Amino acid sequence: MSNPVCTSRADCEALDNADTLAFARNRFLLPEGVIYLDGNSLGPLPVATVKRIEEAVRGEWGDGLIRSWNAADWVGLPRRVGGEIARLIGAQPDEVVAADSTSINLFKLLSGALVLASRKDSARKVILSERDNFPTDLYIAQGINTALGSAYELRLVDGNIESAFDDRVAAALITQVDYRSGRMHDMQRLNEAAVSAGLRIIWDLSHSAGAVPVNLATSGTELAVGCGYKYLNGGPGAPAYLYVAKSLQRDFPMSLAGWFGHVAPFDFNPEYSPAVGIERFQCGTPSVLAMLALECGLATFSDISFANLRRKSLSLSDLFWQLIDVHCAEFGFACISPRDHAMRGSQLSFAHEQAYSIMQAIIERGVIGDFRKPDLIRFGFAPLYLRYTDIWDAVVALRDVMQSDAWKAYRHQHRNQVT
Amino acid sequence: MSNPVCTSRADCEALDNADTLAFARNRFLLPEGVIYLDGNSLGPLPVATVKRIEEAVRGEWGDGLIRSWNAADWVGLPRRVGGEIARLIGAQPDEVVAADSTSINLFKLLSGALVLASRKDSARKVILSERDNFPTDLYIAQGINTALGSAYELRLVDGNIESAFDDRVAAALITQVDYRSGRMHDMQRLNEAAVSAGLRIIWDLSHSAGAVPVNLATSGTELAVGCGYKYLNGGPGAPAYLYVAKSLQRDFPMSLAGWFGHVAPFDFNPEYSPAVGIERFQCGTPSVLAMLALECGLATFSDISFANLRRKSLSLSDLFWQLIDVHCAEFGFACISPRDHAMRGSQLSFAHEQAYSIMQAIIERGVIGDFRKPDLIRFGFAPLYLRYTDIWDAVVALRDVMQSDAWKAYRHQHRNQVT
Repeated sequence: MSNPVCTSRADCEALDNADTLAFARNRFLLPEGVIYLDGNSLGPLPVATVKRIEEAVRGEWGDGLIRSWNAADWVGLPRRVGGEIARLIGAQPDEVVAADSTSINLFKLLSGALVLASRKDSARKVILSERDNFPTDLYIAQGINTALGSAYELRLVDGNIESAFDDRVAAALITQVDYRSGRMHDMQRLNEAAVSAGLRIIWDLSHSAGAVPVNLATSGTELAVGCGYKYLNGGPGAPAYLYVAKSLQRDFPMSLAGWFGHVAPFDFNPEYSPAVGIERFQCGTPSVLAMLALECGLATFSDISFANLRRKSLSLSDLFWQLIDVHCAEFGFACISPRDHAMRGSQLSFAHEQAYSIMQAIIERGVIGDFRKPDLIRFGFAPLYLRYTDIWDAVVALRDVMQSDAWKAYRHQHRNQVT
Repeated sequence: MSNPVCTSRADCEALDNADTLAFARNRFLLPEGVIYLDGNSLGPLPVATVKRIEEAVRGEWGDGLIRSWNAADWVGLPRRVGGEIARLIGAQPDEVVAADSTSINLFKLLSGALVLASRKDSARKVILSERDNFPTDLYIAQGINTALGSAYELRLVDGNIESAFDDRVAAALITQVDYRSGRMHDMQRLNEAAVSAGLRIIWDLSHSAGAVPVNLATSGTELAVGCGYKYLNGGPGAPAYLYVAKSLQRDFPMSLAGWFGHVAPFDFNPEYSPAVGIERFQCGTPSVLAMLALECGLATFSDISFANLRRKSLSLSDLFWQLIDVHCAEFGFACISPRDHAMRGSQLSFAHEQAYSIMQAIIERGVIGDFRKPDLIRFGFAPLYLRYTDIWDAVVALRDVMQSDAWKAYRHQHRNQVT
């Protein structure tokens, strides 16, 4: 653990006063009375987004109308936003494009990777993933079979995925940081193992980019996707992104061949000729408002040192864990997240048999985390806007809810709730 | 032609005064000095959208944060918006969902339709379409082969597509109203012919819904997609929609299997079990801002009689054509759109060898239509906000540009322009 134990709220205030990232909190409009520990699920509203969206609605759409596709460079948004994301994940600007949803982007990269694999070795018929991977990643792999006529086996691993790399595997879908436990993979090690085994990994950065160090170039990553609405603060259902290493772009097979990926969309040629670069990985017309909101989300990272970001993220989660150990020891919370910093993302999850009711009770007190089935309360630590005192106050709220049995008011609700 | 020839602007004013849809113009924020004849490409900004988006950004996202997925029913948006679209296209509310882009939705329906076809008759290996279809429809058909391993031939028809229906065709992609010429198909007749030939049509309603009568139920349509940002006024790159007739929903194969199409997305089950109804046709997380803007666009159709809408659309295009014939006869414009009302959508296109320069020159004067390669100027007639006097003024502007040779200033630009 990196920081000294805080024995009082004043200790946390001292940490806030010394925080070199404290200035970034002003970039967000956080509601009064809320401690937001769910930025790993939906990032909060950046200050700049409000004005930018209003300008875009009134000015670019309302006054500019169709002319804004060129005059306001709407047509360049997917590339421009992709270039900003590239900075956060150690890629070149021409290796990332913002487009569609994470699910759709997974389909693009997985279907293409399978075609590439089958050209080299048609005996590779396994798509590998982790049973605990975010479900949409697994669903996309299952849907691939619908499109391809049931040719692939989706093999789900419970333990060490590297041990399942073999000469039957065509591609692996691996998420850098697990959405439930926060466990983080060593991308470089897995990429090297994948090269040795002759398979390709498609990385999902949804729960890592923007909160933990990601360097796609130095880790030898070829293919990746990620989400715009979590740590990137792009707004609810923001466009996702995808990364394709330069060397793979030119011949990458595109099954979702839409007009925005065409080499000359406005030629209206009946023949599909994909763009040469990262533009190829677009499909249909992107939502301009959603792209602009994502662009504002990314701007919250300007002038931020990634080393500081990581340091603070770990300090916050260490502090939370310490305070739970000290102040909530008797309530039976069991942290399922890795203690080892090298294996920890920017979140912590605690198992408790009353997890659902407890989370409802602390949300009622303004401490927003989330519940994940069957028995987890989950807290994300976004270093751009969280304060050390927020962590203190959150644990105090949790302790109060446990001591006062306030969580019991939500037991009945849980039984009747579908999700 | 339905209305008497207008011989003066005063005649057009009289038509405006008698217009039973005139009240709807107040639902839009149209810029001063602009006559907008490109609502078939991007609909204008509805008044209500500005406030709704600001509320959603500040209130639902900013203050509500993650809670708004339930509290503001973000999760229900694709169904709710789909239900509103259903009203415009003669479908049941549980047969339409708003999701993704038109291109992505085409892939969903085409890939599924091909699987269904192959189960019945594996010898059907042709995807049929029109060479003049909007290119993304053709590109999606070409991309299907990438995903499926080159099993299908895309056969493009130049003339009557019905004559190409045969027992080799698995599915046909047909757009109701042609994006260039405005030619409208008889959906019912083609649907009947498709049933006889044992194939399935996937209709693209992008250039028709919201401006011409569409009745998917009475025309016997099984599968359709459409665009949210044209006549539906949903904003730039608005979400698209898809329609699947109730009878086909339950067993429809989903190749783009994402978590929002799961029967219980928040169970986070590793096994994909698609929802039973139209929810199945969602894939990833939808953009909330884009969905809300589309919802406002659809609200511009409330209390509008579709018969009046069609009547006015045809009156406007008739008037435009008449005025071109009278006032621009000597300039060599050749209308390529059908004169027959039964075959005409809500737009007119004119061929002229200086089409690009002419369009630039009238846009400079505030009359916004668009140019389509190689030699077309295209005008859309959205009856919700256009006035008969707008038509008069647009033709006067066009005549002035021709008489004054103002278009010649744009010749050099054309040569240097990529699109």
